[in-house]
Amino acid sequence: MAQKPSIPKGTRDFSPTEVTQRNYIFNVIKEAFENYGFQPIETPSFENSSTLMGKYGEEGDRLIFKILNSGDYLSKANETALNEKNSNALTASISEKALRYDLTVPFARYVVQHQNEIEFPFKRYQMQPVWRADRPQKGRFREFYQCDADVVGSTSLWQEVEFVQLYDDIFTKLGLKETIIKINNRKILSGIAEVIGASDKLIDFTVALDKLDKIGKDGVIKEMLGKGITEEAIKKVAPLLQLQGDNDSMLKELKVILKDSDQGLQGVSELAFVINNVAKLGLNTSSLKLDVTLARGLNYYTGAIFEVAAAQVKMGSIGGGGRYDDLTGIFGLKNMSGIGISFGLDRIYLVLEELGLFQKVELPKPKVLFINFGENEAFYCLETIKKLRENDVKSELYPDNAKLKKQMNYANKRDINFVVLVGESELNESKYTLKNMKSGDQSSCNFETLLKAVKNS
Amino acid sequence: MAQKPSIPKGTRDFSPTEVTQRNYIFNVIKEAFENYGFQPIETPSFENSSTLMGKYGEEGDRLIFKILNSGDYLSKANETALNEKNSNALTASISEKALRYDLTVPFARYVVQHQNEIEFPFKRYQMQPVWRADRPQKGRFREFYQCDADVVGSTSLWQEVEFVQLYDDIFTKLGLKETIIKINNRKILSGIAEVIGASDKLIDFTVALDKLDKIGKDGVIKEMLGKGITEEAIKKVAPLLQLQGDNDSMLKELKVILKDSDQGLQGVSELAFVINNVAKLGLNTSSLKLDVTLARGLNYYTGAIFEVAAAQVKMGSIGGGGRYDDLTGIFGLKNMSGIGISFGLDRIYLVLEELGLFQKVELPKPKVLFINFGENEAFYCLETIKKLRENDVKSELYPDNAKLKKQMNYANKRDINFVVLVGESELNESKYTLKNMKSGDQSSCNFETLLKAVKNS
Repeated sequence: MAQKPSIPKGTRDFSPTEVTQRNYIFNVIKEAFENYGFQPIETPSFENSSTLMGKYGEEGDRLIFKILNSGDYLSKANETALNEKNSNALTASISEKALRYDLTVPFARYVVQHQNEIEFPFKRYQMQPVWRADRPQKGRFREFYQCDADVVGSTSLWQEVEFVQLYDDIFTKLGLKETIIKINNRKILSGIAEVIGASDKLIDFTVALDKLDKIGKDGVIKEMLGKGITEEAIKKVAPLLQLQGDNDSMLKELKVILKDSDQGLQGVSELAFVINNVAKLGLNTSSLKLDVTLARGLNYYTGAIFEVAAAQVKMGSIGGGGRYDDLTGIFGLKNMSGIGISFGLDRIYLVLEELGLFQKVELPKPKVLFINFGENEAFYCLETIKKLRENDVKSELYPDNAKLKKQMNYANKRDINFVVLVGESELNESKYTLKNMKSGDQSSCNFETLLKAVKNS
Repeated sequence: MAQKPSIPKGTRDFSPTEVTQRNYIFNVIKEAFENYGFQPIETPSFENSSTLMGKYGEEGDRLIFKILNSGDYLSKANETALNEKNSNALTASISEKALRYDLTVPFARYVVQHQNEIEFPFKRYQMQPVWRADRPQKGRFREFYQCDADVVGSTSLWQEVEFVQLYDDIFTKLGLKETIIKINNRKILSGIAEVIGASDKLIDFTVALDKLDKIGKDGVIKEMLGKGITEEAIKKVAPLLQLQGDNDSMLKELKVILKDSDQGLQGVSELAFVINNVAKLGLNTSSLKLDVTLARGLNYYTGAIFEVAAAQVKMGSIGGGGRYDDLTGIFGLKNMSGIGISFGLDRIYLVLEELGLFQKVELPKPKVLFINFGENEAFYCLETIKKLRENDVKSELYPDNAKLKKQMNYANKRDINFVVLVGESELNESKYTLKNMKSGDQSSCNFETLLKAVKNS
């Protein structure tokens, strides 16, 4: 019985058109990364489980794909877990490896492992797939690509400035206008927590604050009270509920709200540096927008926090990043501040597709198809094709001596511009009949004319 | 306690230099594939286990990396297998997905699944990693890349001819001379089996025959007798033990030896077509060599069999392939003959490295480093860097206002050709001090001169 073929949910096949369009995005990102001085590295698809587990929180641990040990893996299985049928407890004893969950932790592992070969500050980029056992939905896949650029080994805020420029550069080159680069700073959030006197309520606070547009000021306050944030605390940060206007006026407000928090003021000063310098240098098509509700990677980032949204299309974030002061510490290398940003290739793809921004991208296809009229003619064609290929003219021979209509049909379906017909008379005269499939024009020519016609088309 | 970082055995990190050199190989292969009319597809890293299992023989099944189901996987585990601690029997019930083992089976699955979107003959290429739980050794990894080009939908032998040209083209472009493209045909092997009257002895026979160079004619006969091949059978194929000389004379001999086997003669005729046409079209640096001991993928291939060796370096095969008449049948699509070849990226890398063939490959690195003398100077530098980058001049600012020596040292270590120094006087005069790190020359210039100097270097 033949199997009906299918692929695991959350994964995708990519057709020639899709691969070509994806590679176009990869190339734009790659060229910009290199233009900014980043160098490529790659890490293995799977890591030792101990490298990944515990780095992404409990939820992350669950979403990591584990690889079953090879051979008689049950011989080393945890007996108790086996008897109790405790999947969670059993896993570590039958699985030692796991698929990459993001590019940041493997990068931290790489930096520590290769620290003696690396010149710091180390600017690396990495464009590889990651895997998450998440529930698939629009823009969320179980296998997807991240494109990351990070610097480790410097605390300079010029890097924050450059990463904003890099976002702007890449989205501009992709033709994606009006992207919004949201920026916040972990120290602002810490400052707010100080002011409301409850670090443990910080997430509840930002989640509620984030709903300001939807449920209004009163709704937000109601939700905060419901989460156990005191009226007094809310009063202290009330101006946050009216924060609006441009980045400068928001920074001014924040300075007032956070006046009693050293950390908070430090955050304001860092943000001001980045925002002012970015403004002076100028962005092409993106805008940088301070957003104090931005709290992604709360346990992770220590300084700047970034998130990018495409204003024209409804889609989750298409990029994110931030500064982490001690990512490599867990692998034994202390005091290595890093900052990085990530591009979500798959979502960017969906956005560009929705906006019709792949029009320029041309599918790699032969410029010319040689019709096959039999063995002698085919050999003559292959001699010609060899010379065309040496001149970088993509060309191919229809493999079979099939009916002319079928061969012409193939050229049409593949949208090939030129067809060459070589029958007995062309063979005897060392000529070619060249047909332009768009115009229908047909002419007899020698090799030089043929080469010129197809090469410059 | 900090973990000492490491990666799973058989996997590798790739440094910027390695990634760049690997990408150089990928690009040469990719350009040639497209030049020959192949189009890219990609398939997921993991497939449903049912797609892969049973396609590579028992050994293959063992070497496939299985992915543990997510969540409470033991709740659906095979009770009997669990109680008997039978790993083999348990696997299917706790693992539904597995990592790609090669690119051919996923390709067959792709063709069947997308048959209505595909124009046949379908020429696709695919360059993706595959994973095997094999014992790592030189040139054998647990994660490695295959670069495959296949055509499905035609039985034309011109394709065999073109694949030989494609091998030759790519190895020539890589600077790898004297590669030996070995060719055989499954029908020759079937013919030999017919002649020796024992299909089940065919592998023993070819294994013994393959040792001719090492153990001589008598040694081979002794081994064959030991494997139960009769004296009578050996007498019939005795000329095989003296096969030598060029392809043409070997073909002549084979025609005699296989005169009573229709299949065998068919194989000779197919081989003759390919060998003759390749000879007439000419190869650049490779040679095509008939090798009747070549039996790779015996259960798989039905016509031509290819294997490529680098003559200058001791390394396993760096490429292989062949024709398979019914690969898609197992997924429900009959009568789809296919032929394809594969390039082993990782071994080709090792060969090129050993021969010093990466000299031309240039690491992506900044052309110019701007020294950081403080906030005002750094801002001025970033304004300049922005303009340089718009002109595609890779450039970067040293992020910190560190000691000059440290910054110059960084430029040296990264082998950056130019350094720009902007102090107060340069700032006031809107000038730059440009230092050529190779020659040591230093000069004051404006932006236009700076751009010209670094862009054309």
